[in-house]
Amino acid sequence: TRQTEETKGNRELHVKTTLRELIIYLVFLVILCVVTFGMTSTTMYYYTKVMNDLFLDTVHSGGGTFRTITNVNDFWKFAKKPLLNGLYWETWYNNENVPNEQLGYIYYENKLLGVPRIRQLKVSTNSCQVHDDFKDVIRECFDSYSENLEDKTSEVTHANYTGWTYQTESQLDGSSYWGMLTTYSGSGYVQDLTGRKNTSAEIINYLFDNLWIQRGTRVVFIDFTVYNANINLFCVVRLVVEFPATGGAIPSYTFRTVKLIRYVTVTDYFILACEFIFVLFIVYYIVEEAIEIKKHKLSYLKSMWNILDIVVIIIAILCIVFDIYRTIVVDNKLKELLDNPDKYADFENLSYWQTRFDNAIAIAVFFAWIKIFKYISFNKTMTQLSSTLGKCAKDLAGFAVMFFIIFLAFTQLGYLLFGTQVKDFSNFQNSFFTLFRIILGDFDFHQLEAANRILGPIYFMLFVFFVFFVLINMFLAIINDTYSEVKGDMANQKNEFEMTDYFKRGYMK
Amino acid sequence: TRQTEETKGNRELHVKTTLRELIIYLVFLVILCVVTFGMTSTTMYYYTKVMNDLFLDTVHSGGGTFRTITNVNDFWKFAKKPLLNGLYWETWYNNENVPNEQLGYIYYENKLLGVPRIRQLKVSTNSCQVHDDFKDVIRECFDSYSENLEDKTSEVTHANYTGWTYQTESQLDGSSYWGMLTTYSGSGYVQDLTGRKNTSAEIINYLFDNLWIQRGTRVVFIDFTVYNANINLFCVVRLVVEFPATGGAIPSYTFRTVKLIRYVTVTDYFILACEFIFVLFIVYYIVEEAIEIKKHKLSYLKSMWNILDIVVIIIAILCIVFDIYRTIVVDNKLKELLDNPDKYADFENLSYWQTRFDNAIAIAVFFAWIKIFKYISFNKTMTQLSSTLGKCAKDLAGFAVMFFIIFLAFTQLGYLLFGTQVKDFSNFQNSFFTLFRIILGDFDFHQLEAANRILGPIYFMLFVFFVFFVLINMFLAIINDTYSEVKGDMANQKNEFEMTDYFKRGYMK
Amino acid sequence: TRQTEETKGNRELHVKTTLRELIIYLVFLVILCVVTFGMTSTTMYYYTKVMNDLFLDTVHSGGGTFRTITNVNDFWKFAKKPLLNGLYWETWYNNENVPNEQLGYIYYENKLLGVPRIRQLKVSTNSCQVHDDFKDVIRECFDSYSENLEDKTSEVTHANYTGWTYQTESQLDGSSYWGMLTTYSGSGYVQDLTGRKNTSAEIINYLFDNLWIQRGTRVVFIDFTVYNANINLFCVVRLVVEFPATGGAIPSYTFRTVKLIRYVTVTDYFILACEFIFVLFIVYYIVEEAIEIKKHKLSYLKSMWNILDIVVIIIAILCIVFDIYRTIVVDNKLKELLDNPDKYADFENLSYWQTRFDNAIAIAVFFAWIKIFKYISFNKTMTQLSSTLGKCAKDLAGFAVMFFIIFLAFTQLGYLLFGTQVKDFSNFQNSFFTLFRIILGDFDFHQLEAANRILGPIYFMLFVFFVFFVLINMFLAIINDTYSEVKGDMANQKNEFEMTDYFKRGYMK
Amino acid sequence: TRQTEETKGNRELHVKTTLRELIIYLVFLVILCVVTFGMTSTTMYYYTKVMNDLFLDTVHSGGGTFRTITNVNDFWKFAKKPLLNGLYWETWYNNENVPNEQLGYIYYENKLLGVPRIRQLKVSTNSCQVHDDFKDVIRECFDSYSENLEDKTSEVTHANYTGWTYQTESQLDGSSYWGMLTTYSGSGYVQDLTGRKNTSAEIINYLFDNLWIQRGTRVVFIDFTVYNANINLFCVVRLVVEFPATGGAIPSYTFRTVKLIRYVTVTDYFILACEFIFVLFIVYYIVEEAIEIKKHKLSYLKSMWNILDIVVIIIAILCIVFDIYRTIVVDNKLKELLDNPDKYADFENLSYWQTRFDNAIAIAVFFAWIKIFKYISFNKTMTQLSSTLGKCAKDLAGFAVMFFIIFLAFTQLGYLLFGTQVKDFSNFQNSFFTLFRIILGDFDFHQLEAANRILGPIYFMLFVFFVFFVLINMFLAIINDTYSEVKGDMANQKNEFEMTDYFKRGYMK
Ligand SMILES: [Ca+2]
Repeated sequence: TRQTEETKGNRELHVKTTLRELIIYLVFLVILCVVTFGMTSTTMYYYTKVMNDLFLDTVHSGGGTFRTITNVNDFWKFAKKPLLNGLYWETWYNNENVPNEQLGYIYYENKLLGVPRIRQLKVSTNSCQVHDDFKDVIRECFDSYSENLEDKTSEVTHANYTGWTYQTESQLDGSSYWGMLTTYSGSGYVQDLTGRKNTSAEIINYLFDNLWIQRGTRVVFIDFTVYNANINLFCVVRLVVEFPATGGAIPSYTFRTVKLIRYVTVTDYFILACEFIFVLFIVYYIVEEAIEIKKHKLSYLKSMWNILDIVVIIIAILCIVFDIYRTIVVDNKLKELLDNPDKYADFENLSYWQTRFDNAIAIAVFFAWIKIFKYISFNKTMTQLSSTLGKCAKDLAGFAVMFFIIFLAFTQLGYLLFGTQVKDFSNFQNSFFTLFRIILGDFDFHQLEAANRILGPIYFMLFVFFVFFVLINMFLAIINDTYSEVKGDMANQKNEFEMTDYFKRGYMK
Repeated sequence: TRQTEETKGNRELHVKTTLRELIIYLVFLVILCVVTFGMTSTTMYYYTKVMNDLFLDTVHSGGGTFRTITNVNDFWKFAKKPLLNGLYWETWYNNENVPNEQLGYIYYENKLLGVPRIRQLKVSTNSCQVHDDFKDVIRECFDSYSENLEDKTSEVTHANYTGWTYQTESQLDGSSYWGMLTTYSGSGYVQDLTGRKNTSAEIINYLFDNLWIQRGTRVVFIDFTVYNANINLFCVVRLVVEFPATGGAIPSYTFRTVKLIRYVTVTDYFILACEFIFVLFIVYYIVEEAIEIKKHKLSYLKSMWNILDIVVIIIAILCIVFDIYRTIVVDNKLKELLDNPDKYADFENLSYWQTRFDNAIAIAVFFAWIKIFKYISFNKTMTQLSSTLGKCAKDLAGFAVMFFIIFLAFTQLGYLLFGTQVKDFSNFQNSFFTLFRIILGDFDFHQLEAANRILGPIYFMLFVFFVFFVLINMFLAIINDTYSEVKGDMANQKNEFEMTDYFKRGYMK
Repeated sequence: TRQTEETKGNRELHVKTTLRELIIYLVFLVILCVVTFGMTSTTMYYYTKVMNDLFLDTVHSGGGTFRTITNVNDFWKFAKKPLLNGLYWETWYNNENVPNEQLGYIYYENKLLGVPRIRQLKVSTNSCQVHDDFKDVIRECFDSYSENLEDKTSEVTHANYTGWTYQTESQLDGSSYWGMLTTYSGSGYVQDLTGRKNTSAEIINYLFDNLWIQRGTRVVFIDFTVYNANINLFCVVRLVVEFPATGGAIPSYTFRTVKLIRYVTVTDYFILACEFIFVLFIVYYIVEEAIEIKKHKLSYLKSMWNILDIVVIIIAILCIVFDIYRTIVVDNKLKELLDNPDKYADFENLSYWQTRFDNAIAIAVFFAWIKIFKYISFNKTMTQLSSTLGKCAKDLAGFAVMFFIIFLAFTQLGYLLFGTQVKDFSNFQNSFFTLFRIILGDFDFHQLEAANRILGPIYFMLFVFFVFFVLINMFLAIINDTYSEVKGDMANQKNEFEMTDYFKRGYMK
Repeated sequence: TRQTEETKGNRELHVKTTLRELIIYLVFLVILCVVTFGMTSTTMYYYTKVMNDLFLDTVHSGGGTFRTITNVNDFWKFAKKPLLNGLYWETWYNNENVPNEQLGYIYYENKLLGVPRIRQLKVSTNSCQVHDDFKDVIRECFDSYSENLEDKTSEVTHANYTGWTYQTESQLDGSSYWGMLTTYSGSGYVQDLTGRKNTSAEIINYLFDNLWIQRGTRVVFIDFTVYNANINLFCVVRLVVEFPATGGAIPSYTFRTVKLIRYVTVTDYFILACEFIFVLFIVYYIVEEAIEIKKHKLSYLKSMWNILDIVVIIIAILCIVFDIYRTIVVDNKLKELLDNPDKYADFENLSYWQTRFDNAIAIAVFFAWIKIFKYISFNKTMTQLSSTLGKCAKDLAGFAVMFFIIFLAFTQLGYLLFGTQVKDFSNFQNSFFTLFRIILGDFDFHQLEAANRILGPIYFMLFVFFVFFVLINMFLAIINDTYSEVKGDMANQKNEFEMTDYFKRGYMK
């Protein structure tokens, strides 16, 4: 965007330069889109869905599924049937046995890498204080999970099973996990399953019979990774059941479908080519921006577009680095894994960073799209709209302050009034999002009414009246009024040389 | 807010004073928020949910749950399985017996305080008049519940059971309850269960076999309280099944999760410290307001802000008083209870007032937030918005009258037309809320259509046309128009000294 | 409203007269509301609901309910279990037998009046034409139902059962019924059940075994009436299963909860008193309007308010007449019925007219509410709003024409494109309502997409763009613009003497 | 529309001519509507629904239905029970056998034409590349379906069954099909069932026992056609189960209810008469437009109305041609079919074109409705609205560009961020539609939050803020502002002679 600056004086030259820049930019954008869409595919959703259906929606002997687990019993029912049946497919649908070399495939298609792992975290007994009145009656007490309350004692009676031995985060090469209730460390009591159904079932039954899950247990993880060679995708599965200090159980899960091996088919190599061009573009833009920074010094940061440029470039560089790193790591991991098929395959961390990487690149593309406006904004109608936004910015800011004070006051009120009863108000963020959704017309009035038959409706109607009717309409009034003004100003202004004029002239010649 | 008044003349001094007041006020607000958020926690919702899941969503032998009870049969099915299994956890999940000292815990974590209580209210036979035509055929008749129609006769044949003996409200130390259909008194026929499963099951079976619930029975309450020492929370549970005069049954429930014991952990004592500061603040504000009242006499009440101050102070005082009262009562109750573990633990009343107290303090915080506007309103953009509201107030009031006449006319029409068929129109309030929700786009057209295939759609479309299209748009027109006006006025006005100027000057010095 | 006219000259007198009239009118309105609300009660909804739950939501042996009937088999499953169990309650919940004098009560509370009746309508064989190509293969053909295609042949082989004998509408004293597919006559093949469970079960089994429902059967009705003496309400139940010519079955139902016996309790007699006052008011208004008509002749009809008066009066007279008629008929019917308890109790017709009567009175009350505007409209802010409506009426009418042509074009397009697949577009009215609901944000995009993956989304987006964005916003623009205009006009106008001035003066004296 | 052009000078004559043209046009429109509505009927929806209920919602032995199929096992469970029971109705509901001549009717009413056909498509083994690391472990690999990867090998071991023999598209006279995942060719492995239940069950069991569906199987089709003589409608059913390369199964279906035989009843012949009149009209309009084209040459295409005329005429001609073609083909097909009742009845293609034809005519009618505006637009209020649209077109276009860049940027961002987790964002189109639906208030916030707890809410709120609040309100501002302008202009303009004047004059004479 160097040249643009220098041509402010000569309108026609300015248009011409901008046009050239725009075309280069569009080529860059196309390359970027090709690279991004090359990384993803619609198959990924179906893969996630198939795994979801299999592990989350298969009915266990109590009539529920993983999603409906509400206590330890349900968890064991899930572990004994849907989990084992989902992991091990040892007969065809007509009950013939699957030949040995085809064992170890979920749905006969998805190779189970290594063995699945079950891990739990406990808090130690009497990790919390009991009130004096109750001290004689309640002798044991287990606090909510927090890393420093972790139980680290190991039992030695279960010789053949590792499930009663505490291992630290570094021993397990684990990482912490953000659950529904809190963040859990990567350490804990680990029990790996095996590659066959009957031996795995034995392990699960042993854990069940010996009360592996105890009062102090706060979370259980089930981890495994599958690889589908047909479509060259990994799915890293983590099923989590949290056991809060209230009793009961809260299930959650992550299914990360990632493309850890990038270059296999012909299309993949075409993407690789695009990626090289992309790197060249990035180098070109780095140089350009460097020149600009040198020239304008601090005032460089005053333009929103320049900051956008910097952000996009930084994200791009990070992604390129990660891409190389990933290729190396995956290769090593796979080689090691295929040599020891009975080891747990830990792709948790890698898949986590891979999704972060995907997100980063998605955001970069978003910014790249937005930057189109830089080139388009000297068309007259466009200017009208953007200068409307610019002009009412101050009013909108004032409005926003007012809006947010009221909105936050309502958020807090909602949380305090209904927080113990209604999920949508059970914490501050939820309360905030819920009120936001009410503005858009997505709400459940009946649960508010059920939580408090008098304050519920009053709260709801006050909120809707003040925020939906008064404030939103005022928002509209601000924009409406400013638009009229801007349009009036524009009408008086003399017409500048525009891009459309440029095209018209070219056409007439 | 004393000083503010006196400085109207000197603009700069005024700004300075206001700023000082604002800072003091913000400190107060922070303390208030700390105190409020210290009383609550996101764990409370999970506690309610865990109890909900256990008692409301566990399936009974007929395939339904507590929520789906529609007749006496369903009630007994619920009482025999999900209720008893939910209350008494006497084996671990692998069917080993729980040791004796760990009995009496729901989910092995939540101590059942005292014993659960079952209570019913009946109306006496022939509490209503039968029409002459039917007198020969219909010999018995039981009216809808009302306190003066209560059946107070006791049967003596069931020697070992209290369930057939009427006890008054004062004997039971009870209080009245607002159910789905009407308000019930605190008296009735009471049967306490025991602390063990098999004896409780015997009691329930005896009640079942001897037709404890009769034609005259109008409501059955199941009451108990649990205490979780891990998170120091009580959950006061009341399950209600109403038997209307129409036959059938209507279930409802309250789960009040409350923190009756306040000061146990270190954090709790930090909150206590904040509460002391809070009390000091309240004293300070009381003095200040007293001075102002003395000075301005009646004109004091003319300012909206002053009234807000008074309201906040009164709520604060009430809360402080209740806080002290609660601490004493809970302590006594618990001591008594731990001495007689076979008595019913009546926390119903206490938890009721505790939630009232929580609500009161929540509303006080809301008002405290709103008061920020007092200090913020002399920024120009703010004034623009608030004076828009002020200026269109008269028009909006006129509009509101018009709106409400039409709205009420529609409410009544909806109630009369669809009230016998559609739940959302089954009484005047519901009808009102339903129409309000239609404006926001949350409605069920099909049930209106099902209730009346011709009038349903016509009613719906007329309402939407008049209220949604015409009136709401007129509302918008009023605000829009007034905003333009106010903005025009402001533009002509000379700029007053503003808070931003104050900061700018400070910066330049 | 006589006096109002004559006082146009003297503003003050005019206000005074209007005020007096307003007060009289408000008294009338209060009486009217008392009468109306006296007729209804919130218990009615619960009664309907209890009956609904019992007959529509009880599960049959195939796992479905009445609502989910999709073929003849399901119908018989429903008839054999939920129907019989719902109608006959011959044991208490603990399986003891109910004493004889308490038999015949649904839920032990609701007297089954007379016996239930099952009725079917058939079309005759070869009621339709088979195309030449198929004539050799398809020998029998049964058209969709229409009264003139009815099968009227009776079979004589089933001596003890009336179910195979055709009876005409006058023999049965029946009336036609508007079903989901078409309107059915009141004639048909009728089989009454009995008052006891086992004999009724025998009848149903006999019908089942002898294929009572045949290929020609187009509809089956199950009719009965219950009376609850506790709350003095009738519930007239009709369960309908239509068997369309396509095969399969479509269930529907009506539960009419009506108060056929009006005066039993003390409150009822208070209502009666109000009804007398109401009659007096009506006489007063009739006289007044008669005078006005005589005076103004045809120009009387030019005022919207006068027409409203006429409508309200006519409805009132009709209701009074019906009220008297109903009281007589019900009395006769009940006497006859209690003498012959084994006869079918036909309240179908009476309850139909009773609900019509309730609706009529509801609409009258609505109009009465609206008339308040007549008295209120000379307040200034009110005038502003109503004259805005008046002024933009012409523009809105033009807009409405445009709107409806586009709307109908879309309605038709939707019906033709998606009618065979999507319920919401399955006929013209549904299509119309569905589009209307889309404007309000209540729609199911996925079913449109499923019906046609290309045209569905395009249709939806075109509709939303043109109707929701362009037209609705234009509507808003019209109102907004006119409001500004009117407000401008008003500001210039000199203030007239208003009602508020009147009060102010009264206050100052 | 010839004459209109020539009368621009004389306003009165112009109105008169237009009026005459309008009347002729309305006659045309009525005829067109009669023809269109004659082709369809509300019965069609019920027919589709009955078939839907029977095949999609009947529960199989695993507790699921066709809709809930998620793997090969479920498919076989469906095929063994709901499919066979749905196709063959060989006993009455009381278990008596249906007489032989009435066999072969679904629901005893719908003749199954020919025999049902099951067809599958496979991909060949090792149709994809396995990454080097895995080559030793994963020996077989089956790519996603694509026509050139099809497995075309036939097995000879199953002598009596055609299900293992590959047949090409031309051998099968098939056509390609657009499934949920991709487009499938018309070739494959075909197995026809028979006309009786037991023999068909044998075939299905044989296929099941011999693992007919293998790892390479990518899709299975079940095809059959039923004809209901009562209502003269065909229903062409195709049930599809796709087996993606991820494992698992995705069910889909088409039920095409079509009226292939047009002229049977008296009403049909009335429609035929209308169709003749319609043809005459089309001829008339063709001539007229031809004259116009000759006169105006290229400038003819400048008028939007002329293009509309051309489009309607072309569609009409296509429909007429197809109508004739269809009549001939159906007749031949039926004759052939009734001679060989054991052959598969292939109506797939015909019904496909029939629905295309129905859609085409529906769109033609839509355009015909829109054309009314041509005649109506010289009424003043109308002009106001349409010139508002015209005037703000340029601004709206500029706005639209801006809107779509932002909208597409959000679409892409949504797809990349949530595509692997959330169905609504699983591909670009879905993502686009989902964002569109968010604007209308139809969204599922919780699934966004579940997919990404941080980016989900941020993305949602940014989108709503920028697109819903800012852009939509700007849209409104544009229309609002332009309307005020246009109305101002109009007020100054002198009144032209209008259609209403014409009527007024006629009335005065
Ligand atoms: Ca909505």
